Amino acid sequence: MAHALRLARRGLGNVWPNPAVGCVLIREGRVVGRGWTQPGGRPHAERVALAQAGSLARGATAYVTLEPCAHHGRSSPCAEALVKAGISRVVTAHTDPDPRVAGRGHAILRAAGIEVTEGVRETEARQMQAGFLMRVEQGRPFLTLKLATSFDGRIATASGESQWITGPAARMHSHGLRLIHDAIMVGGGTARADRPSLNVRGMGTPRQPVRIVVSKGPIPDLPPEGPDFGPLWRMGGPVETVMKELADAGITRVFCEGGGELAASLLRAGLVDQLVGYTAGLVLGGDGRPAVAALDLQHLADGARFQLVETRRVGEDLFHRWRRAGP
Amino acid sequence: MAHALRLARRGLGNVWPNPAVGCVLIREGRVVGRGWTQPGGRPHAERVALAQAGSLARGATAYVTLEPCAHHGRSSPCAEALVKAGISRVVTAHTDPDPRVAGRGHAILRAAGIEVTEGVRETEARQMQAGFLMRVEQGRPFLTLKLATSFDGRIATASGESQWITGPAARMHSHGLRLIHDAIMVGGGTARADRPSLNVRGMGTPRQPVRIVVSKGPIPDLPPEGPDFGPLWRMGGPVETVMKELADAGITRVFCEGGGELAASLLRAGLVDQLVGYTAGLVLGGDGRPAVAALDLQHLADGARFQLVETRRVGEDLFHRWRRAGP
Repeated sequence: MAHALRLARRGLGNVWPNPAVGCVLIREGRVVGRGWTQPGGRPHAERVALAQAGSLARGATAYVTLEPCAHHGRSSPCAEALVKAGISRVVTAHTDPDPRVAGRGHAILRAAGIEVTEGVRETEARQMQAGFLMRVEQGRPFLTLKLATSFDGRIATASGESQWITGPAARMHSHGLRLIHDAIMVGGGTARADRPSLNVRGMGTPRQPVRIVVSKGPIPDLPPEGPDFGPLWRMGGPVETVMKELADAGITRVFCEGGGELAASLLRAGLVDQLVGYTAGLVLGGDGRPAVAALDLQHLADGARFQLVETRRVGEDLFHRWRRAGP
Repeated sequence: MAHALRLARRGLGNVWPNPAVGCVLIREGRVVGRGWTQPGGRPHAERVALAQAGSLARGATAYVTLEPCAHHGRSSPCAEALVKAGISRVVTAHTDPDPRVAGRGHAILRAAGIEVTEGVRETEARQMQAGFLMRVEQGRPFLTLKLATSFDGRIATASGESQWITGPAARMHSHGLRLIHDAIMVGGGTARADRPSLNVRGMGTPRQPVRIVVSKGPIPDLPPEGPDFGPLWRMGGPVETVMKELADAGITRVFCEGGGELAASLLRAGLVDQLVGYTAGLVLGGDGRPAVAALDLQHLADGARFQLVETRRVGEDLFHRWRRAGP
């Protein structure tokens, strides 16, 4: 399952509105097929692994990070494909909350006499799959807020100079994070001030993320959609509504890169699931521009707490990643 | 020498105005004596190691992190003691810039026919010894600025609530850093607002650090000097003057814990040699109280750059330490 989870991760950012799934087929102790959800969401991981295994799938055990699908869409259900291929045992991390599946995939397998084990590495799988799960279960995407700041949390000097606080390695590293999100989001002020490219560069990505500008006002001319740029969506209204609309449009993972007003709105609304910081060895002082606008917090306990997931050096800068604490 | 350097570190914070020195005596491949500068600065590391070795010092090699002293103070010079003990070879990391020594220690050894090797692990030794060296060479102590902040660099909510942003493990960890500094410094505003204890707790320290309050105005009643509290020094005037006066008083390592105005003054004057950050997984927003007051930086290039030395989790918080870049 650990192997299947690593394969699943390859799909993050490239498979929306579908989940990023990984599948490994093992027969007599040997891997006979490996698959992960392909860009755009199809073929599914199980199909790729079964195609790779061919006749070797007969009698094999399938490790799949998510319950196989049970519904007829553009192709027949994966659960049926596993039965047809002669798989003898299926191990999954958790059920698919999609109402078209929701246990029916496991039921199809069991009805065909296949041994099914559920819940293997479920916590890990649910964390990785958080965007897909939140979209289905809560009607909003998983949101990462990235802030690249000075040691004292500033994104520009008092005079507005901001290029570059963090170094080229940190910028390249953040392209790696853009890559595993479905969409990149900025506020209108940032779009107008920085005209950001909001694409993934230098990563050989098969699919550019959607560009989202949240703005009541006009947004500047940004490059049209094409091989180097994803669709450009201008959105407005309260952030709660924006997030719901994004989920409705199929987006499961959003990477927000500021500015301070949008970041504050998302934090106030409790919509930030992950914080990513790039911190430079530079102090800009209290007159520098803050990374997050006013939150009007009276008490420390009023703010969401985040738990440190990882920290390390990236080039000259400090990288740190936090997930929202609690359920 | 690596061993001697580790021993030397034990003296940091406890031996001012003396340098923290380590000494290891090796005879026929075996350690026959180990010493480090004792609390208060005496006995010197060499004396401790020689006393431990006794007659086994004859023919041994001495690894000393600093050139042995050559001047008659409260005791006879260590260089002479090494000669008298019959040491056959001395390896040092660097010469002592103190004008009473400055090569004369090495000269005494060589004149007695002892083989002397200088400059072993010199960079490492100079970094560890930076406080002593800066006091002698530049007339000011080494200064660490510690900031314990939210993810976005704030030390309190808009309403002033600040306890606790970082957790108990981070606070205990920072007592470990107080321990290796000669003095703890805060600004008058912080002293009045927080009445900080400015001592080392829970570390079994042999010597409490000096408490320094930099303030033009009155300072609150803080506990008198005693077993749990070091001397209390109220200082005023420009920070450059304060630092010079501290060096004159023998202080080699200062740990500044804020507040924002004092931190800004020190940064503006280029007096910060090391930054220590404790970052909590909490966002307080642009209306929270900044950790550093206005610096009036126009360009990014106007601020000092610091290089990341280490980063790791401490309890729930992120710990990161930076040294000033450049010479």
